[in-house]
Amino acid sequence: MSKVGVIMGSKSDLPVMQEAIDILKGFDIEVEVDIVSAHRTPEKLFDYGKHAHTRGIQVIIAGAGGAAHLPGMVASLSPLPIIGVPVKSSNSIDGWDSVLSILQMPGGVPVATVALNGAKNAGILAAQIIGSSDRCVRDKIEVYKEGLKQAVLETAKQL
Amino acid sequence: MSKVGVIMGSKSDLPVMQEAIDILKGFDIEVEVDIVSAHRTPEKLFDYGKHAHTRGIQVIIAGAGGAAHLPGMVASLSPLPIIGVPVKSSNSIDGWDSVLSILQMPGGVPVATVALNGAKNAGILAAQIIGSSDRCVRDKIEVYKEGLKQAVLETAKQL
Amino acid sequence: MSKVGVIMGSKSDLPVMQEAIDILKGFDIEVEVDIVSAHRTPEKLFDYGKHAHTRGIQVIIAGAGGAAHLPGMVASLSPLPIIGVPVKSSNSIDGWDSVLSILQMPGGVPVATVALNGAKNAGILAAQIIGSSDRCVRDKIEVYKEGLKQAVLETAKQL
Amino acid sequence: MSKVGVIMGSKSDLPVMQEAIDILKGFDIEVEVDIVSAHRTPEKLFDYGKHAHTRGIQVIIAGAGGAAHLPGMVASLSPLPIIGVPVKSSNSIDGWDSVLSILQMPGGVPVATVALNGAKNAGILAAQIIGSSDRCVRDKIEVYKEGLKQAVLETAKQL
Amino acid sequence: MSKVGVIMGSKSDLPVMQEAIDILKGFDIEVEVDIVSAHRTPEKLFDYGKHAHTRGIQVIIAGAGGAAHLPGMVASLSPLPIIGVPVKSSNSIDGWDSVLSILQMPGGVPVATVALNGAKNAGILAAQIIGSSDRCVRDKIEVYKEGLKQAVLETAKQL
Amino acid sequence: MSKVGVIMGSKSDLPVMQEAIDILKGFDIEVEVDIVSAHRTPEKLFDYGKHAHTRGIQVIIAGAGGAAHLPGMVASLSPLPIIGVPVKSSNSIDGWDSVLSILQMPGGVPVATVALNGAKNAGILAAQIIGSSDRCVRDKIEVYKEGLKQAVLETAKQL
Amino acid sequence: MSKVGVIMGSKSDLPVMQEAIDILKGFDIEVEVDIVSAHRTPEKLFDYGKHAHTRGIQVIIAGAGGAAHLPGMVASLSPLPIIGVPVKSSNSIDGWDSVLSILQMPGGVPVATVALNGAKNAGILAAQIIGSSDRCVRDKIEVYKEGLKQAVLETAKQL
Amino acid sequence: MSKVGVIMGSKSDLPVMQEAIDILKGFDIEVEVDIVSAHRTPEKLFDYGKHAHTRGIQVIIAGAGGAAHLPGMVASLSPLPIIGVPVKSSNSIDGWDSVLSILQMPGGVPVATVALNGAKNAGILAAQIIGSSDRCVRDKIEVYKEGLKQAVLETAKQL
Repeated sequence: MSKVGVIMGSKSDLPVMQEAIDILKGFDIEVEVDIVSAHRTPEKLFDYGKHAHTRGIQVIIAGAGGAAHLPGMVASLSPLPIIGVPVKSSNSIDGWDSVLSILQMPGGVPVATVALNGAKNAGILAAQIIGSSDRCVRDKIEVYKEGLKQAVLETAKQL
Repeated sequence: MSKVGVIMGSKSDLPVMQEAIDILKGFDIEVEVDIVSAHRTPEKLFDYGKHAHTRGIQVIIAGAGGAAHLPGMVASLSPLPIIGVPVKSSNSIDGWDSVLSILQMPGGVPVATVALNGAKNAGILAAQIIGSSDRCVRDKIEVYKEGLKQAVLETAKQL
Repeated sequence: MSKVGVIMGSKSDLPVMQEAIDILKGFDIEVEVDIVSAHRTPEKLFDYGKHAHTRGIQVIIAGAGGAAHLPGMVASLSPLPIIGVPVKSSNSIDGWDSVLSILQMPGGVPVATVALNGAKNAGILAAQIIGSSDRCVRDKIEVYKEGLKQAVLETAKQL
Repeated sequence: MSKVGVIMGSKSDLPVMQEAIDILKGFDIEVEVDIVSAHRTPEKLFDYGKHAHTRGIQVIIAGAGGAAHLPGMVASLSPLPIIGVPVKSSNSIDGWDSVLSILQMPGGVPVATVALNGAKNAGILAAQIIGSSDRCVRDKIEVYKEGLKQAVLETAKQL
Repeated sequence: MSKVGVIMGSKSDLPVMQEAIDILKGFDIEVEVDIVSAHRTPEKLFDYGKHAHTRGIQVIIAGAGGAAHLPGMVASLSPLPIIGVPVKSSNSIDGWDSVLSILQMPGGVPVATVALNGAKNAGILAAQIIGSSDRCVRDKIEVYKEGLKQAVLETAKQL
Repeated sequence: MSKVGVIMGSKSDLPVMQEAIDILKGFDIEVEVDIVSAHRTPEKLFDYGKHAHTRGIQVIIAGAGGAAHLPGMVASLSPLPIIGVPVKSSNSIDGWDSVLSILQMPGGVPVATVALNGAKNAGILAAQIIGSSDRCVRDKIEVYKEGLKQAVLETAKQL
Repeated sequence: MSKVGVIMGSKSDLPVMQEAIDILKGFDIEVEVDIVSAHRTPEKLFDYGKHAHTRGIQVIIAGAGGAAHLPGMVASLSPLPIIGVPVKSSNSIDGWDSVLSILQMPGGVPVATVALNGAKNAGILAAQIIGSSDRCVRDKIEVYKEGLKQAVLETAKQL
Repeated sequence: MSKVGVIMGSKSDLPVMQEAIDILKGFDIEVEVDIVSAHRTPEKLFDYGKHAHTRGIQVIIAGAGGAAHLPGMVASLSPLPIIGVPVKSSNSIDGWDSVLSILQMPGGVPVATVALNGAKNAGILAAQIIGSSDRCVRDKIEVYKEGLKQAVLETAKQL
């Protein structure tokens, strides 16, 4: 049973969003992946937002570019924590549009926003959320962070 | 029968949006006004977007602040032309958030965006849209524009 | 008889503006295309703005880059609804200049602004404006939107 | 035992951060509150980040203004999910500094960023994170969201 | 005979533009003042731009806010040097809109842009332009600059 | 005798600034060209600013990138009208730094700023300034503008 | 003998710059204060920049607003380390102009830039520079930093 | 014994930071170079910040990109003057994130910020700081600045 749902507004977001999928797989967390466009498939958006938690999904990661409404609309429909990934798409104004339309949610409906194109961090954050009540996942995160540290120390030695 | 639907994400948007209502009334165009929150009443949003055109609405004006998803989501759901009014709300980052989350819609789903807090222009634009096929309304717009001109000329004389 | 006038400030805007022309042709809406420079051919601008509606044009789409005055000046001169397309030209400051000089029109003279380089959406919006009083065009828009949806659903299946 | 740690860089952030505390109390989630300055009390920051999870804290909310390093540094030190609240402090450049120094974390160390001054949403997000494995909290969130919806519907009726 | 024409898009720009008028009067340069709205009185704009130089005007100062098209359109119509003053109007996005829509003119049609609300400098620049061929005016500018210097030196002494 | 001085902060600005030189030559206006760095050759800057007008220079065009102090410092030292060209240099933050450090001069010391990389317009503006008192140059400008117009009309015909 | 020179472009910068003076006095470091306007008193600027180090000044703090050229020009003229304080003046575009015209200095001529209105930090930085070779001053900085820490810990206790 | 410590958040910052190292070597100032990641090696950061001055380091240069916390955190931990270099990393939002998260430090904890990617200037500034009490280094800086001047004068001659 998948614990994290990764959705994106367009297939062109996949190269960015793949990093979230990969990192979660690295933590042995099952992921379901789908394309859900707020603007082209609003019914699918509604269905997804309303029912994801009923099939065991614990966290949703939503990535979109430009006037990025997918993360906020899923947050409107679902009781789950939603992580938003601003994607720097081709006609974006330097990414500011997707950052601001995901981040600046009104009071009552949060989206946990990560950096522009920060899908990897979205995956880690989803693991941390699951790990907040799952000791085994948290241990993996601690191992992962230890790995980051060792890699830096190693590189520093080779200067 | 109302020809223009004016909706806004929160009652706090009403002082700005009232200008759209007033100008349309000045053109004798009937208006229905409602509060529809993309993030707090998504079902109402769906219902509104799906059915507004079936009861004779020809244009929808949607105003919202911050991560403003209302105009774009109505555009997703309705075949009508949608006019978006970015509202400079209290926690907005100088209005950039609402401007960009309304303006930067992806290909396929346009929102006719007006200036920050530009609800008056949204009303005039709605009248122009109706006037594009209704000679009587277009004549009123020409009279209105003539009035703007005379007011400037008068002010200039008094310098 | 053309129903939509598509104008642009320079021939270099044509690759962007072509998307508006193509989408309108796809809806079987006749289009006239011209180059009208606010800054280099002001007399032509005046003539265009004053007379477009008298030869049956119902909507004008105007695209320009940098300090983009064409859409706003046509809006000043014509009673028709004007759609403005900010074009990201070569010496633009990331497109902000064309976006702001088209969007931020003063009260009384609206321009329906679409996304940076969003000529495709300008074409759809023009069709929606015509469709607001022409059932046949509106039906085509509904078909078009259904097509967008099916394309996303299809892509999602192939993930 | 507190489940959420709310920290801020300065007492002047408290009026903003109080909204996070209040909303969590409304969900009957216990909160510990502290002032931890990344720049003036780095040892306390280290101690806090290293040990919060060992005393049962499941989520940390960190608010700071200007060059806001508190959320990111706690994220560096703790295996827990960290929620960052950009605070618009007095000498901030319109809030952009705190937004960007919290949001744009490098790969490996996420901070779940909410809107500028969005402490209320930080509280709700913390509850959603706890609720992702605690049915009772999730039910409360669903009730809360239902309340938001009813409030909008009520206001709409009174227009 | 007036040598400098000062025009503005709206009477609300007068408090800012008055500084240009005052400084020119201080240099004994005659000024004509008018309100010319690019968007509300396009015919007057045309007439003004086409004929100002024929009645002896040597420099035009044009001030406007928001999507400020007045300076650029006068530059399109007149062979004279045009000085543009971006005015920070009430619904402006922090003045960026007027700055960019005046500054970013396309190749071929310059506008000499001064700082946001910098009407005083527009007046001095107009005097410098006249002074570039009029020794008497240039002498006054040298006296004026000497005065600025003495004022600073005096203030510094009083520290 | 040269009437226009064209200076730039670095030889790397020459490809941009050459457009000013070329257009002035096209108007048969003599130009002197030099490299004057505000930050590396302050004595030369002082000498240039203090004496340019004494050898017959009527207008100075100064181009610089990044924290561009050359135009403003020459304006501080010379009684002549100074035209500033913001150059988008390699480590510039999208050109904003040079635009703002040239445009936003304090009251008393104007710089006539043109668009980012707008050296061509700087040349035309210099010609207009000379033309404000030299009928022959003004006639050339009118011919130039007529040429711009004909070129657009020609291109439009070929659509 | 003064070790730090504090200069500012205008007396209106004094309320901001006073914080630098006060903090240096608190460290028993002698300060000389002066008004030096890059744009209105360029000769004084030259004199100051050329000679400050010859009378024993070890660090210069320069504050200015808008197109702030004072810090960079002093850096051009002096071999000393220069600290620049961007001041948010009245007609500034939100402070961006002074920040960018101080920060973005070209290679070869650094300015040590502090936060917008950050004169207090400029004072501390000057003390740290002196302290880098003066043990007594460095000890005072350590005491100062310890004081900052204790103040935060105290405030935290009182929550 | 090294007098300047150059640290960076990631090995990918080395191509930028190398310019600081090279310029310092050119002044015969010894440099130690290390990779210290605020977010991946917080313990090393603590150790570095706490002890650099005890082994004779007089100035620290810290470079980082994105949400760049390294310079500010070292400033929190060390009594030394800290120079921050904003690095334009791959997923940066045009460099604004690193500039603002380094520059906008709160009162009490300064970072001497240089231009985006301005590592060369960071090196010169470090030399100037050492030179403020070391006559020999200051002489070298004067020679260096004289060299910059001669290079410009030479280039100007070859125009």
